[in-house]
Amino acid sequence: MTRLIVLNGGSSSGKSGIARCLQAILPDPWLTLGVDTMVEAMPAAMRSSDTGITFGPNGEVIVGPEFMTLDRAWTEGVAAMARAGARIIVDEVFLGGASSQQRWERALDGLNVVWVGVHCEGAVAAGRETARGDRVAGMAESQADVVHRGVHYDLEVDTTHAEAIECARAIAAQLK
Amino acid sequence: MTRLIVLNGGSSSGKSGIARCLQAILPDPWLTLGVDTMVEAMPAAMRSSDTGITFGPNGEVIVGPEFMTLDRAWTEGVAAMARAGARIIVDEVFLGGASSQQRWERALDGLNVVWVGVHCEGAVAAGRETARGDRVAGMAESQADVVHRGVHYDLEVDTTHAEAIECARAIAAQLK
Amino acid sequence: MTRLIVLNGGSSSGKSGIARCLQAILPDPWLTLGVDTMVEAMPAAMRSSDTGITFGPNGEVIVGPEFMTLDRAWTEGVAAMARAGARIIVDEVFLGGASSQQRWERALDGLNVVWVGVHCEGAVAAGRETARGDRVAGMAESQADVVHRGVHYDLEVDTTHAEAIECARAIAAQLK
Amino acid sequence: MTRLIVLNGGSSSGKSGIARCLQAILPDPWLTLGVDTMVEAMPAAMRSSDTGITFGPNGEVIVGPEFMTLDRAWTEGVAAMARAGARIIVDEVFLGGASSQQRWERALDGLNVVWVGVHCEGAVAAGRETARGDRVAGMAESQADVVHRGVHYDLEVDTTHAEAIECARAIAAQLK
Repeated sequence: MTRLIVLNGGSSSGKSGIARCLQAILPDPWLTLGVDTMVEAMPAAMRSSDTGITFGPNGEVIVGPEFMTLDRAWTEGVAAMARAGARIIVDEVFLGGASSQQRWERALDGLNVVWVGVHCEGAVAAGRETARGDRVAGMAESQADVVHRGVHYDLEVDTTHAEAIECARAIAAQLK
Repeated sequence: MTRLIVLNGGSSSGKSGIARCLQAILPDPWLTLGVDTMVEAMPAAMRSSDTGITFGPNGEVIVGPEFMTLDRAWTEGVAAMARAGARIIVDEVFLGGASSQQRWERALDGLNVVWVGVHCEGAVAAGRETARGDRVAGMAESQADVVHRGVHYDLEVDTTHAEAIECARAIAAQLK
Repeated sequence: MTRLIVLNGGSSSGKSGIARCLQAILPDPWLTLGVDTMVEAMPAAMRSSDTGITFGPNGEVIVGPEFMTLDRAWTEGVAAMARAGARIIVDEVFLGGASSQQRWERALDGLNVVWVGVHCEGAVAAGRETARGDRVAGMAESQADVVHRGVHYDLEVDTTHAEAIECARAIAAQLK
Repeated sequence: MTRLIVLNGGSSSGKSGIARCLQAILPDPWLTLGVDTMVEAMPAAMRSSDTGITFGPNGEVIVGPEFMTLDRAWTEGVAAMARAGARIIVDEVFLGGASSQQRWERALDGLNVVWVGVHCEGAVAAGRETARGDRVAGMAESQADVVHRGVHYDLEVDTTHAEAIECARAIAAQLK
């Protein structure tokens, strides 16, 4: 039985909308936890510091050593919640591409996971970033491709032309 | 010179995203004010009361007499801001169709206004409502058509297949 | 009959809490509109630009010419809403002290207004700013006194030792 | 070395403000996770259903079986994060009093925990609930005492007359 659905995609690619649609259409209750949940849990000062998170001139996200320590602990905790019986949608941005996935694979070892790549053309994601108005400009474009480098998936969806609810239905059909 | 851009469309049709894109691409500063701004300004108790706002079984919005009194005053205030020199994007839902537009037309008399219809197919808007997760279910579908009944526009956009940023560019091209 | 309650105080002095308590205890429906409403209505880019709003090293708010133009129009609009029948709580920060009040007095000419000074000791307001976690550090301390310079009130409350609900009750007792 | 600070108190008792102050004054980075984080991670539908969360006529929170399953898994996950190296402030409401604490004690076995009781007189908490305006009315009063029944603490603070930042300093002084 699938315990985790890992959605990986760049900023403004539409992961959170897909996650909410999955929660609405799946018969069992699923928690959605993601990098945004963790960032909100961090001290306000770490959200803009060299040891926490900073942004490059084109919206690149740069994370420091303290962020990485918390991130590792967070991953272990999410795995433990799944082992303790929760069904979890992980809403993530693999800034490190394949190496980010390997870190999650180690933590989720032995659990039944569906890995989903959420794609969106950079220019379209950049437009949606503008329409949201609450993100650092440039993140969408700078993350659109790099987060998928070397990552392998059970399923890939593309929100460039498909609605979140359609992507969610395609993912739901893959669960065992 | 255009002083007001009135965006009318049902819930989850994409008006707010278009408004934020317009604010980003237009050279002058534009304020965005809408029915959501007014509802947030109201007492918490009025958001779920017979005299304020209630929701029908299929997500229909039902507004009471006190809501309508405040709404009328709100409209006059927005007009006064435009007369005093502000450029304003009005993000509205004409629950009363043509009669809502007439009320706004009277208030905005003498001002240069661009009226924009924001369409989105009901089923698609309903899916986006699920993806947002913060709206009463059914509002999108129940408002999709009625808000446009008898309303006349300078320009109509459809977010069913077009991105917010594209719609914003089409609107920006109409301004004088 | 009182049409407007103007609450003036520094950031984190407790104005918004008092406003919500007033809305809850007053028998008629009152709208709360404030500088925060206007800032949210502005383009994202103006919230951190020389022409809009910038912050000094100690949290001082510096507003540019375009902010002031919109602010003037906003004030006229709020006055027009009151003239059209709305009861309004204005949640404001008189960055210019007496001159800010004069600007509001001119706009509200002929309307029945209750002017309320909301005080809070700088050190206490600074602690509450930390507890909120969503404001630029230093704003509370830097605004605590200057916003009251030369301003005259019908009533003054101090949230340093009084709860928001108590302050709201004292204000409600002054309305005609 | 203290790994966890568990803050237990009723709704609107001031726990979240204390947590943000602790994050600001403690030299190491601490994550704040609480029942609010978990509720936000749940499907929208569970926030108002018999199997999730419902509210009684006086603001009592009633949780169903599916909520309790997720809650148990959540607790295990938070413990695992602490074991993996994170410092965590747990912002909790022990609806079950002593039995809620026992559940957390079992999960946190072997970890260095500081248990903090956050008190606030019911009438004062109820006033602050009104001032926040975003909570179900009555929660503050109905939870003020029951959440502390049979619970033992390393330290107790009372926000009725003390500021969040003062309470945070008292707690910080207890850490090893």
